[in-house]
Amino acid sequence: MNLTHIEHLGIAVKSLETAIPYYETVLGLKCYSVEEVVDQKVKTAFFMIGDTKIELLEATSEESPIAKFIEKKGEGVHHIAFATKDLVSDLAECAENGVQLIDKAPRKGAEGLNIAFLHPKSTMGVLTELCENPNK
Amino acid sequence: MNLTHIEHLGIAVKSLETAIPYYETVLGLKCYSVEEVVDQKVKTAFFMIGDTKIELLEATSEESPIAKFIEKKGEGVHHIAFATKDLVSDLAECAENGVQLIDKAPRKGAEGLNIAFLHPKSTMGVLTELCENPNK
Repeated sequence: MNLTHIEHLGIAVKSLETAIPYYETVLGLKCYSVEEVVDQKVKTAFFMIGDTKIELLEATSEESPIAKFIEKKGEGVHHIAFATKDLVSDLAECAENGVQLIDKAPRKGAEGLNIAFLHPKSTMGVLTELCENPNK
Repeated sequence: MNLTHIEHLGIAVKSLETAIPYYETVLGLKCYSVEEVVDQKVKTAFFMIGDTKIELLEATSEESPIAKFIEKKGEGVHHIAFATKDLVSDLAECAENGVQLIDKAPRKGAEGLNIAFLHPKSTMGVLTELCENPNK
């Protein structure tokens, strides 16, 4: 595996309108991007702290995975994303180790990253994303 | 607020014996410390990735907050800890902003850090810890 740091934390929130002021005013972080990802049925807001982004996720439909997560578990951390220097090799290694892959091959994620998800059944309950920056 | 980076992520697991090999063999991280914290009724295992630690938490009793968390939400991320350069000032600022504090003053945490927790009712469901390293 070629993991370097935590690229981002995905946090499910009921309302960006309520959550963004908490992250900005209370925690003192700056929201540098708000974006709707139509096919994932979410609106996202991004903050940076150290090497890690915080990605707030609000559902735009009851069918959104984020709506289902909040219904089951409440607001909170939805996934951890690790930065890797070699996503294809890491996915092969995960598969060899018996990890269930949600994405068998990299796909395009936010900010032009190549990404793939590991299934929480194989990762002690933590939905896990691997991200590679193709420009680094 | 004086936050610099994510100091650690606390992750609730059913069994360190199962989880440590996943973090070591699959993710390729090195477990550098295993410790029992008797008053918190947990056993912990620490890993480092980038600037951030991963702290796995296994309950040692059914009365442990970790056992209750897993019963309610399943295994997963239990808390986020931010590193700060000035914990006393940050706690005062949180209180001014109406954030409910679990710890009104810093107390000693793992690895000699001064720590305090914010209540998840005030932090969009994310149990939040602030940590200051008194030796920095």
